[in-house]
Amino acid sequence: MSGSRAVQLSTEMSHLKRSVMRDLLRLAVDPGIISLAGGLPASDEVPTEAFKACLNKVIERDGAASLQYSPPYAPLQAWIAEAMVKRGVSCAPEQVFVTNGAQQGLAILSRLLLDPGATAVVEAVTFTGIQQVTAGRGAEVRPVAIDPALGVDLAALEHAFQASPKPKLAIIIPSFHNPLSATLSSEARQRIAELAASYEVPLLEDDPYSELRFEGQAVPPIKAFDEDGWVFYIGSFSKWLSPGVRLGWIVAPADLIPQITVVRESFDLESSTLIQRAVYEFGASGALDEHVKRLNAVHKRRRDALLSALEEHFSGSAEWTRPLGGLFVWMTLAEAVDTWDLFHSAVERKVAFVPGSAFAVGGGQQNAMRLSFGNVNETRIGTAVTRLAEAVREGVVGEV
Amino acid sequence: MSGSRAVQLSTEMSHLKRSVMRDLLRLAVDPGIISLAGGLPASDEVPTEAFKACLNKVIERDGAASLQYSPPYAPLQAWIAEAMVKRGVSCAPEQVFVTNGAQQGLAILSRLLLDPGATAVVEAVTFTGIQQVTAGRGAEVRPVAIDPALGVDLAALEHAFQASPKPKLAIIIPSFHNPLSATLSSEARQRIAELAASYEVPLLEDDPYSELRFEGQAVPPIKAFDEDGWVFYIGSFSKWLSPGVRLGWIVAPADLIPQITVVRESFDLESSTLIQRAVYEFGASGALDEHVKRLNAVHKRRRDALLSALEEHFSGSAEWTRPLGGLFVWMTLAEAVDTWDLFHSAVERKVAFVPGSAFAVGGGQQNAMRLSFGNVNETRIGTAVTRLAEAVREGVVGEV
Repeated sequence: MSGSRAVQLSTEMSHLKRSVMRDLLRLAVDPGIISLAGGLPASDEVPTEAFKACLNKVIERDGAASLQYSPPYAPLQAWIAEAMVKRGVSCAPEQVFVTNGAQQGLAILSRLLLDPGATAVVEAVTFTGIQQVTAGRGAEVRPVAIDPALGVDLAALEHAFQASPKPKLAIIIPSFHNPLSATLSSEARQRIAELAASYEVPLLEDDPYSELRFEGQAVPPIKAFDEDGWVFYIGSFSKWLSPGVRLGWIVAPADLIPQITVVRESFDLESSTLIQRAVYEFGASGALDEHVKRLNAVHKRRRDALLSALEEHFSGSAEWTRPLGGLFVWMTLAEAVDTWDLFHSAVERKVAFVPGSAFAVGGGQQNAMRLSFGNVNETRIGTAVTRLAEAVREGVVGEV
Repeated sequence: MSGSRAVQLSTEMSHLKRSVMRDLLRLAVDPGIISLAGGLPASDEVPTEAFKACLNKVIERDGAASLQYSPPYAPLQAWIAEAMVKRGVSCAPEQVFVTNGAQQGLAILSRLLLDPGATAVVEAVTFTGIQQVTAGRGAEVRPVAIDPALGVDLAALEHAFQASPKPKLAIIIPSFHNPLSATLSSEARQRIAELAASYEVPLLEDDPYSELRFEGQAVPPIKAFDEDGWVFYIGSFSKWLSPGVRLGWIVAPADLIPQITVVRESFDLESSTLIQRAVYEFGASGALDEHVKRLNAVHKRRRDALLSALEEHFSGSAEWTRPLGGLFVWMTLAEAVDTWDLFHSAVERKVAFVPGSAFAVGGGQQNAMRLSFGNVNETRIGTAVTRLAEAVREGVVGEV
């Protein structure tokens, strides 16, 4: 039966928008299309052999325990805590909560902190998954101006924290922002931590990309400047290990971990202990460090290819960011260009991207686009940008 | 920092109760304790070698695609649809939505259908995870009487459907009920499907256990009698394959799958494509059928051992169910016994169970307990029941 037309959906379903990402991902797996759409790390670098070896090792060593119900895998929590310390964060294993990717971290923490109708501060241009856990839950969203290169505007952020009603949480992507590619300076991070503490606004630091730096010096997380437990850090293995492991983590004050556990158990009980154990083996063996070095070298070449091609085809007619890491370039075209219209003619030419308005909280960005360079080799990036330029020219001519 | 005492939690957090399950599971992994607590299938039967072979096959064959982002794995959806047809349900692949276990199915569907303050009909004694997605979301819970052997009372169910305000959903565990072990007759299932349709109450059929039948004839799911799409079926691979795969599914009207997808993406995007592919290989190869036969033979011997030991030690002083499958026996002791008190003295004697009140919606069952026989061998089951009987005798003497 496909009936059920009389089923009445919850109020929440009127807020949750259908994500464009799924359809874009379908395009991305069509081998005929060159996709600069999905936020995928380089497929050619996915560490299949090394990760397979970890899976085998875990099953052979741990037997049934690797496939049963299990408490959180303590060695992984300890390894993540060490990794956070390397990033500059004071972090004990008991502050680490393992999740199914960063999205589950966002979902858990927004459930912990946010009631429908409460106010959530978000960047005015941000990841769709952040929009789903705020506006999608019926929260009042208070967008804050953000610069594509510098990140969130600090004066605007303070203004948003001061305004009434008092926000119940804020969400910031500090490094290689999705979609803008902005990375906040160390000074800005310190200031944000201070603002969260002084206005008592819990701050979710969504940081899936910081390990994907291929140029410049690492910057500590906002959490590194958090003295009173107002910053909740959200990490992910999706980009620097593999999206298929579906594993991430939260760093939170230890006294809130029991509450976080309760929310998570209501969602889906626990993360696969097999995957937790295999990811730990991969990390502890040093394979992850080696992998991310190779991955970033590949991503850097692809970023270079994308910037060169944009220079060749869009110089003078568009602006774009020059990221030092991550997966994205944000390009803004002439105001008259509508990138949703452009999207359709681009797909006809077998190239895909994400129209900017998909990321714009409360509208705008209709002449912008996100270009993801991680999973397309240099030659194909050149071809893609050539096709994109043709589509833009055709669109401009078509309008005349 | 472990500070953050000033963080204000959402209203929902005042409803979500800390689950006893996690602590009980910690006891279950203490090798010194014989645990009849957690709902674990037999660890000695977990198909580690065969599943490892499936993982290797998938990674070798599919390479990076097995560890990237991915749309739902269509062969698994088709295989599940076929499995549902074998269970007597008319089911197309496009009605199948893959989840991270049955708990995520409950979480997604309750989010789809239930607002805080709305009414949810649940069995008066039921799985704690069902309480978390109803009462835990701030729903008004309307409990319906349930018989430990026969399952939910049909007259009481109709009464609950008729009462005002109209319920927005109902949740029933039809087979080898957790914790009661009751299995509904085919006639009762047909009647429940009719009631859901005639009162227009979406019915969630939570069915993780039906494949664990070791005696008697299979009974079709309630969904088999659903003509108008009012029944949502929730399945799981946790019990009949392995809890560690964290995989389950929903069968829903095809026109609601896009909405279900939106909710799921807001939770945690998608299930691991590696695990989806490996579970498909395991199922399609016939290994799952062979595995569940062996598993059920083991479970049957353990049930027999538990029933014999109960007969020996509790005849005349308690009542218990005689399940034809699943993992649980429900035992009711003399009214004066408090099984939470008993739990503590039992743990001192190195045996664990779940006190009945943990499952009681709105109180009661303080003299009952759930005994899980799946993961304890026959000798240890005998020892466990001997210790339990000692703890009960001690408690009775202690009271005098």
